[in-house]
Amino acid sequence: VGHVAINLAQKLCLFHDLWSPRVVAELNDYQIKLAKLHGAFVWHQHDDTDELFYVLDGVLEIALDDGVVTVRPGELYVVPKGTRHRPFAAEPVSVLLIEPRGVVNTGGAGGALTAANDVWV
Amino acid sequence: VGHVAINLAQKLCLFHDLWSPRVVAELNDYQIKLAKLHGAFVWHQHDDTDELFYVLDGVLEIALDDGVVTVRPGELYVVPKGTRHRPFAAEPVSVLLIEPRGVVNTGGAGGALTAANDVWV
Repeated sequence: VGHVAINLAQKLCLFHDLWSPRVVAELNDYQIKLAKLHGAFVWHQHDDTDELFYVLDGVLEIALDDGVVTVRPGELYVVPKGTRHRPFAAEPVSVLLIEPRGVVNTGGAGGALTAANDVWV
Repeated sequence: VGHVAINLAQKLCLFHDLWSPRVVAELNDYQIKLAKLHGAFVWHQHDDTDELFYVLDGVLEIALDDGVVTVRPGELYVVPKGTRHRPFAAEPVSVLLIEPRGVVNTGGAGGALTAANDVWV
């Protein structure tokens, strides 16, 4: 395929399911993912890693035990490891996520919103 | 300061020097940086790490030994570890960089464009 940049808007046109991250690139042992969010996710935490959220479209609210972070397009927020959080999107949100390969999206919380890993788009 | 998202456009207003990455966030042992580029950088490589370029403004060309990758706003490219590359910006470019803490911007090439690390904005 040669050397081609990855266009995030093009990638976002290729899937529509919610809360199902798609890998678009890898950086050493980290994965760069896109996800579409709408509504409330589950409260969860990642005990071993920070997690980066960079919002492309829509307004993402990340509830923490002691407050809410509002993340708008062009903004990013890093949830520190071990921090309980719950993403919430009142309207549809497109987000870029960065975390190490193998992180489970629901942390230890499990449940129906747990997504498969290593699904590329 | 509580929990506040990082607005990349606001951060870009706070510095103007070229080829001098500013740290805006950390993700485990990785740093998220912003840089302003214009003109040609030096050929260099990072033997121990991949390097992610995500373009916010302008058109970045990354020359490789066997081709050129054009990276436009909303696009990203990961230069694999050990790959010789030379960023080039015909017009001013603003870019988000992600790489492990401590990486020297010029790799082993050295020279006047070598920037200090761990400068936050």
